[in-house]
Amino acid sequence: MIERIAILGTGLLGTSVGLALRAAGFRGSIVGWNRSAEGAQVALSMGAIDSIAADPLQAARESQVVLLAVPIYATLDFMEKLAGVLGPEHLVTDVGSTKGRITADAGRLFNRPDCAAFLPGHPMAGKERGGAALGDANLFRGAVWLFTDNPAWERSAHAAALVKAWRELVAAMGSKTIDLDPARHDELVAWVSHLPQFVATALSALLQEQVGDAPELKDVGGRGLREMTRLGASPYSMWRDIAATNTEAVQAALLALEQRLAHIRENLRTPELRDEFEKANRFRRG
Amino acid sequence: MIERIAILGTGLLGTSVGLALRAAGFRGSIVGWNRSAEGAQVALSMGAIDSIAADPLQAARESQVVLLAVPIYATLDFMEKLAGVLGPEHLVTDVGSTKGRITADAGRLFNRPDCAAFLPGHPMAGKERGGAALGDANLFRGAVWLFTDNPAWERSAHAAALVKAWRELVAAMGSKTIDLDPARHDELVAWVSHLPQFVATALSALLQEQVGDAPELKDVGGRGLREMTRLGASPYSMWRDIAATNTEAVQAALLALEQRLAHIRENLRTPELRDEFEKANRFRRG
Repeated sequence: MIERIAILGTGLLGTSVGLALRAAGFRGSIVGWNRSAEGAQVALSMGAIDSIAADPLQAARESQVVLLAVPIYATLDFMEKLAGVLGPEHLVTDVGSTKGRITADAGRLFNRPDCAAFLPGHPMAGKERGGAALGDANLFRGAVWLFTDNPAWERSAHAAALVKAWRELVAAMGSKTIDLDPARHDELVAWVSHLPQFVATALSALLQEQVGDAPELKDVGGRGLREMTRLGASPYSMWRDIAATNTEAVQAALLALEQRLAHIRENLRTPELRDEFEKANRFRRG
Repeated sequence: MIERIAILGTGLLGTSVGLALRAAGFRGSIVGWNRSAEGAQVALSMGAIDSIAADPLQAARESQVVLLAVPIYATLDFMEKLAGVLGPEHLVTDVGSTKGRITADAGRLFNRPDCAAFLPGHPMAGKERGGAALGDANLFRGAVWLFTDNPAWERSAHAAALVKAWRELVAAMGSKTIDLDPARHDELVAWVSHLPQFVATALSALLQEQVGDAPELKDVGGRGLREMTRLGASPYSMWRDIAATNTEAVQAALLALEQRLAHIRENLRTPELRDEFEKANRFRRG
């Protein structure tokens, strides 16, 4: 039943969704829009989209499904604008990394019988660098795609069918879907996604100061150092919005890690260190 | 000129050296000894060693080169014992991850004209799990192998030739060698190797408490989480000695990271966060 999809934002994620939809056998049309024309051209040349829209709102009106694949505050802006121009024949979904604000706005602006439907989504996939050129049809294969849908929302049968069709496309792209409450989502990703990112940023920034002037010494760290700092390449432009919309949960996770590091620092020569290694070993085995 | 090598400790590193020597074309004999007989048997069955020694000191006496591939305190114990039974026809070298204590003992017990030579070494290669069965002929390919030799040591021409021959074998195993002062070595590895390890341990132990009871949620973190916690599987038995012999440098690195994380935590909504991301980006680009 989905014949036309609009992808608003053809960066790494939007382009990868276009490519993954094609790889999964989606035969409808895909129109793309991007803030910078160059990113849309790259997505077009890669076959992730069939055409470039001049006006994102018009492209959304002409599609059944609208995927917002832009940073979180840009997603919130689009939600306000789209709510005014779309109707019950449309489904909007997104890929934002925090879901509290977006899900609240989805309840305020969408998901009533006379409104467009909005399904808040979050694929747990990405790369440390963005951009259409890194788009990858296999990015979502084996990944988890989280949804924070609200069972209390009243949708028309048509809207419910669109939601079901989009979930089937997500599964066809190779992802396992998990449904979570938005507050639980934001707390969980603070631990398993945002904390690792800010740790990699802190470690990379610190090492830049300590050994950044001796690039030959970076090789000394080997694979372990490369892996622990890979996410250090992640762009501020994306993480600014995440930090601003999940501040309390990220603060709690960072503080807990600071305390853990201090505990290890104070116990480098005591048997407490064994307990930390054994607990860490259990996490990797579990 | 090296016809017989004794590898004392056929864990991951000792077994990998045996395999890498063979892959590099070393045609002499390799005798192995391991604290647990099973580890020696595995190394033998993999072709990393030709025979198993019942007595490590006798095996050392019958070889030109003795490689100590055991934890640091066991290395220091072997150094005391070997100094009493070896002579100027022998070279002892090691793979220990901290070099201050070992290099000091090497000067006290070896490296005089009438003594065996000792070349302190540290290959920057490993895996998060140990054991002979994970031994890998390519473990040292593309890695850095550090030495903390002391130019003031007086060695016979024969000992100097053995040192040169071992360095050539290390290069043949695919490693790039770098010479460092031992204090500089220990400070450097505190930043690029020990800090990443203790961070991975702290992060893994913390996440074990937070989400360890919901293993399905670990998948949510994806590749980033897997990489940031891979070293969490590292064994306490190895890291205890590293923590105990490089305590001050590791403490300084941990404290600096704690302060960095606190700075990020206090600036999740300020432009300071941009500076941290840009510095981290530079480290990955540099």
